Amino acid sequence: PVWTPGHCHTARYTADWKSLDARPLPAWYDEAKVGIFVHWGVFSVPGFGSEWFWWHWQGEQPPDSKCVKFMSKNYPPGFSYPEFAPNFNAEFFNPGDWADIFKASGAKYVVLTAKHHEGFTTWGSPNSWNWNSVDTGPHRDLVGDLGEAVRNRSLHYGLYNSLYEWFHPLYLLDKKNRFRTQEFVMHKLLPELYNMVVRYKPEVIWSDGDWEAPDTYWNSTQFLAWLYNDSPVKVIVTNDRWGAGCACKHGGYFNCEDKFTPGKLPKHKWEKCTSVDKFSWGYRRNMKLLRTVALGGNYLLNVGPTPDGMIPAVFEERLRGVGAWLKINGEAIYASKPWRIQIENSTVPVWYTFQGSSVFAIMTTKPPKPTVQLMEPKTSPTTTVTLLGSQKPLPWSPVNPNAGLTILLPELPYTPGQAWILKLDGVH
Amino acid sequence: PVWTPGHCHTARYTADWKSLDARPLPAWYDEAKVGIFVHWGVFSVPGFGSEWFWWHWQGEQPPDSKCVKFMSKNYPPGFSYPEFAPNFNAEFFNPGDWADIFKASGAKYVVLTAKHHEGFTTWGSPNSWNWNSVDTGPHRDLVGDLGEAVRNRSLHYGLYNSLYEWFHPLYLLDKKNRFRTQEFVMHKLLPELYNMVVRYKPEVIWSDGDWEAPDTYWNSTQFLAWLYNDSPVKVIVTNDRWGAGCACKHGGYFNCEDKFTPGKLPKHKWEKCTSVDKFSWGYRRNMKLLRTVALGGNYLLNVGPTPDGMIPAVFEERLRGVGAWLKINGEAIYASKPWRIQIENSTVPVWYTFQGSSVFAIMTTKPPKPTVQLMEPKTSPTTTVTLLGSQKPLPWSPVNPNAGLTILLPELPYTPGQAWILKLDGVH
Amino acid sequence: PVWTPGHCHTARYTADWKSLDARPLPAWYDEAKVGIFVHWGVFSVPGFGSEWFWWHWQGEQPPDSKCVKFMSKNYPPGFSYPEFAPNFNAEFFNPGDWADIFKASGAKYVVLTAKHHEGFTTWGSPNSWNWNSVDTGPHRDLVGDLGEAVRNRSLHYGLYNSLYEWFHPLYLLDKKNRFRTQEFVMHKLLPELYNMVVRYKPEVIWSDGDWEAPDTYWNSTQFLAWLYNDSPVKVIVTNDRWGAGCACKHGGYFNCEDKFTPGKLPKHKWEKCTSVDKFSWGYRRNMKLLRTVALGGNYLLNVGPTPDGMIPAVFEERLRGVGAWLKINGEAIYASKPWRIQIENSTVPVWYTFQGSSVFAIMTTKPPKPTVQLMEPKTSPTTTVTLLGSQKPLPWSPVNPNAGLTILLPELPYTPGQAWILKLDGVH
Amino acid sequence: PVWTPGHCHTARYTADWKSLDARPLPAWYDEAKVGIFVHWGVFSVPGFGSEWFWWHWQGEQPPDSKCVKFMSKNYPPGFSYPEFAPNFNAEFFNPGDWADIFKASGAKYVVLTAKHHEGFTTWGSPNSWNWNSVDTGPHRDLVGDLGEAVRNRSLHYGLYNSLYEWFHPLYLLDKKNRFRTQEFVMHKLLPELYNMVVRYKPEVIWSDGDWEAPDTYWNSTQFLAWLYNDSPVKVIVTNDRWGAGCACKHGGYFNCEDKFTPGKLPKHKWEKCTSVDKFSWGYRRNMKLLRTVALGGNYLLNVGPTPDGMIPAVFEERLRGVGAWLKINGEAIYASKPWRIQIENSTVPVWYTFQGSSVFAIMTTKPPKPTVQLMEPKTSPTTTVTLLGSQKPLPWSPVNPNAGLTILLPELPYTPGQAWILKLDGVH
Repeated sequence: PVWTPGHCHTARYTADWKSLDARPLPAWYDEAKVGIFVHWGVFSVPGFGSEWFWWHWQGEQPPDSKCVKFMSKNYPPGFSYPEFAPNFNAEFFNPGDWADIFKASGAKYVVLTAKHHEGFTTWGSPNSWNWNSVDTGPHRDLVGDLGEAVRNRSLHYGLYNSLYEWFHPLYLLDKKNRFRTQEFVMHKLLPELYNMVVRYKPEVIWSDGDWEAPDTYWNSTQFLAWLYNDSPVKVIVTNDRWGAGCACKHGGYFNCEDKFTPGKLPKHKWEKCTSVDKFSWGYRRNMKLLRTVALGGNYLLNVGPTPDGMIPAVFEERLRGVGAWLKINGEAIYASKPWRIQIENSTVPVWYTFQGSSVFAIMTTKPPKPTVQLMEPKTSPTTTVTLLGSQKPLPWSPVNPNAGLTILLPELPYTPGQAWILKLDGVH
Repeated sequence: PVWTPGHCHTARYTADWKSLDARPLPAWYDEAKVGIFVHWGVFSVPGFGSEWFWWHWQGEQPPDSKCVKFMSKNYPPGFSYPEFAPNFNAEFFNPGDWADIFKASGAKYVVLTAKHHEGFTTWGSPNSWNWNSVDTGPHRDLVGDLGEAVRNRSLHYGLYNSLYEWFHPLYLLDKKNRFRTQEFVMHKLLPELYNMVVRYKPEVIWSDGDWEAPDTYWNSTQFLAWLYNDSPVKVIVTNDRWGAGCACKHGGYFNCEDKFTPGKLPKHKWEKCTSVDKFSWGYRRNMKLLRTVALGGNYLLNVGPTPDGMIPAVFEERLRGVGAWLKINGEAIYASKPWRIQIENSTVPVWYTFQGSSVFAIMTTKPPKPTVQLMEPKTSPTTTVTLLGSQKPLPWSPVNPNAGLTILLPELPYTPGQAWILKLDGVH
Repeated sequence: PVWTPGHCHTARYTADWKSLDARPLPAWYDEAKVGIFVHWGVFSVPGFGSEWFWWHWQGEQPPDSKCVKFMSKNYPPGFSYPEFAPNFNAEFFNPGDWADIFKASGAKYVVLTAKHHEGFTTWGSPNSWNWNSVDTGPHRDLVGDLGEAVRNRSLHYGLYNSLYEWFHPLYLLDKKNRFRTQEFVMHKLLPELYNMVVRYKPEVIWSDGDWEAPDTYWNSTQFLAWLYNDSPVKVIVTNDRWGAGCACKHGGYFNCEDKFTPGKLPKHKWEKCTSVDKFSWGYRRNMKLLRTVALGGNYLLNVGPTPDGMIPAVFEERLRGVGAWLKINGEAIYASKPWRIQIENSTVPVWYTFQGSSVFAIMTTKPPKPTVQLMEPKTSPTTTVTLLGSQKPLPWSPVNPNAGLTILLPELPYTPGQAWILKLDGVH
Repeated sequence: PVWTPGHCHTARYTADWKSLDARPLPAWYDEAKVGIFVHWGVFSVPGFGSEWFWWHWQGEQPPDSKCVKFMSKNYPPGFSYPEFAPNFNAEFFNPGDWADIFKASGAKYVVLTAKHHEGFTTWGSPNSWNWNSVDTGPHRDLVGDLGEAVRNRSLHYGLYNSLYEWFHPLYLLDKKNRFRTQEFVMHKLLPELYNMVVRYKPEVIWSDGDWEAPDTYWNSTQFLAWLYNDSPVKVIVTNDRWGAGCACKHGGYFNCEDKFTPGKLPKHKWEKCTSVDKFSWGYRRNMKLLRTVALGGNYLLNVGPTPDGMIPAVFEERLRGVGAWLKINGEAIYASKPWRIQIENSTVPVWYTFQGSSVFAIMTTKPPKPTVQLMEPKTSPTTTVTLLGSQKPLPWSPVNPNAGLTILLPELPYTPGQAWILKLDGVH
């Protein structure tokens, strides 16, 4: 019963994986299904490559690194990454506008990078003096300001936090010492992390950057025991990135590796994070969302604001498009659960979810003919079928007695996501 | 025998003032007499007011603060102090040139601000990530580079280190807790300070910024015990700024308050630090140096380089002027000691020092007539008098039998410092 | 026969409107139908408001100007507009990429702002020293570099040039003199304009900023006579903004006022310029394009690159969407002409064009039923109807003998532009 | 009678050298003797090398140019000279403070660079739009603001103006055309120059940058004829840099080549311009001033303010030092004239000037003995000798009857300039 949400738990957790892993996941998370992942930091300033810019420039870059060339072409010799910070000005940042877009996307939670691998905190961390968004650049508490706007719109709020920091000298020292010392963890990481939790009370901690050291270096189990037992955020959800070897094995929900997609229904609640590319949504994007939900996962859509605080129009449009689709089809998604069958492929591939007594059959391909066959649902005399977005019952006939339906489809409307959902009642 | 230098000490010091204060001062320091104090940091960038710019701008400023006006006139709203750092570029910094000037000034030691109250370290402190001169601005190890140049010219090298940092959030936290917590000391100050000593092996630690908290907050006695017993710098010299109430009472030599000048011969080795103002040297500057030396003090002359790494010409000229004078008169200064009388005022004010069997009578006013009377020296048949800079014995006659001389002066040459020294042998 | 293109003209034009207006418009322009308008300049740097930023900031702004507030919030007091120029860096500008996008959009010509009202030239004008893209900012000949890429893809290339410059001191002087002096025209405008034409040989001069002074101040007729008679660009096309009162009356094609849309078929070739807003294309954008073409106009789509030289993804996507649609439907657009009837509204609104012996009926609304009635075409025994994008003849029946068709439509495919075109042959 | 000042001249000058050269020099200039030359412009920003930085960087530089290295080390590739302008911020510029220093120096006129070879005007020239100190950088009318302060202190005010501009594209065009075209002169130079004269009414035009082209290219004689006949500044003084071959031959006073020093008394009024180096004044500087004055020249001392508007302390100190010396010795300098003998060398070198009935003998070396012999003055029974700065007549005796004096000197006071002046009355 690992991730069955909603259980009441009164005993205290101990600082070991056996105890921590037994914690039921708070119910809100499984019901939410769709979240927004916001990557925003000093890396937004060069705006070249990705949020891994610093690493590709000055970490282990290939000899002909594009980032190296970009820097030598556009900046003076000796220019250093921290000197980007004053240009992270966020001058147009309006948290209300962002939150409106996120709300309109149909997402139920928002996760902001409170600190990426660059170590820059988007809040005024006392342990990251002059390398945070209050002391320099935006001169604002981005974590706090976005959180307030997000919560005012009844969205859940989570924070991404990287355990390691590529170039933090104390981390490099510990690394050189093969993680037998914990200078970084004791003087930087943990004080900051505890502070962040107490100050912002996030509902998700999206942990990352754990892979170079074991969880014992990071003091992960101690932290999580505190988090679950004594922190002010009892409904908190975390993921599985808490030390080398933890991914897909320990922690809260599972992210496993980036862009992980399971082949079949996982036993453990999982989340898929993926980015909104500029041209792809119209084609295949929603397939991933729907497959994810049918397989019991959450879907976390990434957006990358500009350093001056704008969400590029193409992202906004994608998000509004998802929202428009979810407005019609949300009952098959939010708070749904994987059905006993996740997919069948008779006429076209069909994914299944259910909620209450309704089963939802999700088509991500337009059937070539105006009829579609579903073989898995078992029908009954009271079976009814509708297309989400319309009240009108659709004519159907059984394929076999009590099993399978041939449904006569209406003309399928155009949707940006190219997905149509049939709601089946009175089936099992 | 407090400050008699040169004693060999084999026992270990304990972390209490009684033990620490008993340490003899290393001999080199008392012999050096003249040092250079270099104030260089992010405060050099606004170049307005003083190194206290940040405090006068955003700390406790008067309502009509000039610094506040300066910022609102010249910078965008919200501009923050750390954003000055990229403009601390040190592009013209040539440590060899600086060290040549310091050498030419006749100084025997150089003290650089390794960290002023702003917290910015002029070396790559792992505890001050991205707020130091290697990560941003100069992109250089200023402490290391200047140290090498200075030591190559046989000068001693010291480092100024502020205990407190005006705006460090951990310090502010401790302060709010009335110094009952030591977050700042444990996570920031001490790791950095130990590191600095081990890395650069300074011969002076010029401690400052101690006054808001007791030495027990700073862990000063523990640090000093380590410094004296176990650090790699056994000839180290420190001052007396190690906690509220310590000044003029505990530690190494005494700075007491800024610009302290004792009225009479102190029992404890002391140092006077003062700045080179643009127009003053020609008039009264050397009086202070000479008075300081006659009273057993060291004289630490401050210079303020520009953010691009230049020593302003007016400073260079002053320093070379001092050096030219010391070249002629150094034997009365370096390694001298206060004489049994420090000052007399018969014809003109005369300060005394001695070294070996010679007594030096220092005139900082040109006598109105070509003769001068000295009443304090006791003469003998072998008494000889010369003017430093010349070999020629000067005619003199006793004032009283065996006491006092009337000396016939030659024409006194012009000197930038307006000071002339008579060397008396065979007196006591 | 004013704008019938393609006539050969051997006589010289005289510098008066009667002669100049009689020049036939070069044929390529009427055939092109669709162009891209690129607004790029120093105004791209603040990226706030529009290309009129400077005027709204420091010209005649309303007292509560948003631009004024934007500047005082984000820049130091006294910051001036020319100081934006170093940040117009165009670091990612790849003219080939831009031209690929423009080509993919189906446009046949591209017009770049060579100089907007701010006076900054995007080429190295000798008359605009240090206020052009070669001397500062991009350090590139933007006009030349884009032109080469555009022409390599067989697109026509035009240049936008503002006659007036809001804040040019010589212009302000002439204005103060009620345009009785021509300091600006003689020392700045005309030398630059002649130079630009000779250097870049544009095929369009999109003149603007004429309205404050009469064409006699601008020396417009003399310039145009030279342009038509003696310049190296005989196929050049110009518009109608050559002096107060000229718009919609004199010159080449007519822009009339901004966003001009005529109610019925104009007698004179015209062009509509309009911008790609972030959300609108999917809904109504193509209606304007089609209406424009049906009424004999050209359609000039505006895009606004970023100061670092990127075409925002949302613009690129819109342009590629237009291109995809034009690939299927281009034969009704390019080189088409207005039909004898421009619009009818039987089942749905239908715009008409024709080319050769084919008439094109353009529907911008999906008919509610699978049939559509067209009343205006006169049918014949050989009349055939197809839907562009498909070869298959569509069944139709006459409404009246020889007039009107009822056409049985196939399922209409989704198109980003929501427009479908029926090709009618054998009608008149 | 070429430069005898003060003549009243009613006839008009014609635009040829014969007529122009015959103009008497306004009297104030010869009487002034000492001026201050202020070099301030965009070249102050790199602050590297000299005001010729741009030329040594991007003009004809040696292959291993230090300026080229400086730029590639400290600036991004492609950085251009105009991009320095926003950093010429003049934030500390206080014209009153400057004028106070100039006044205290004893100078009688001040010449500011209104435009150096870089072409940047330190006033809002309408012909140099966005490349002047009002549109960018200081955002101030430096020429106007300094002029007002200078004149309020009863100093004369002059403007330096470079005829050529190294990189002006119109100048480069004319140069390529071997100066057979005058695009630059007609569209840029002359409109600006006339405007500058009318607007600021300078009393000196210090012309420069003439050498690449003949005066006929620059239209120099026409300009000067206008200046002398019709401009609002009748007491104007100009120099001799008005075209290749003009120097030392035509125009107002003569600068000849830079740092020109004549060997004997020139027939034509001349001026020597020289810079205040950081260490030299104390030694030999005043010798040049005195030699210049004794030979009938004016002495123009250069200072270079910082880009933020400060006069470096070392310059200020030098200037105040000159002023202190002139306060005592001014009667031998201001409004003096060369005597019949300019120099003799009996005891020490002695330069002569006279004024009214007094002859001044200027010693720049301290005589080795307390007497000095002057052989040239012819004495009389009423001859009296004093040392400037003292009222007391000095004892003297004739060397020969009526010729030559042996003067008994008092102790000569220290002066920063090491120069002492004897005033002789009743000699001839």
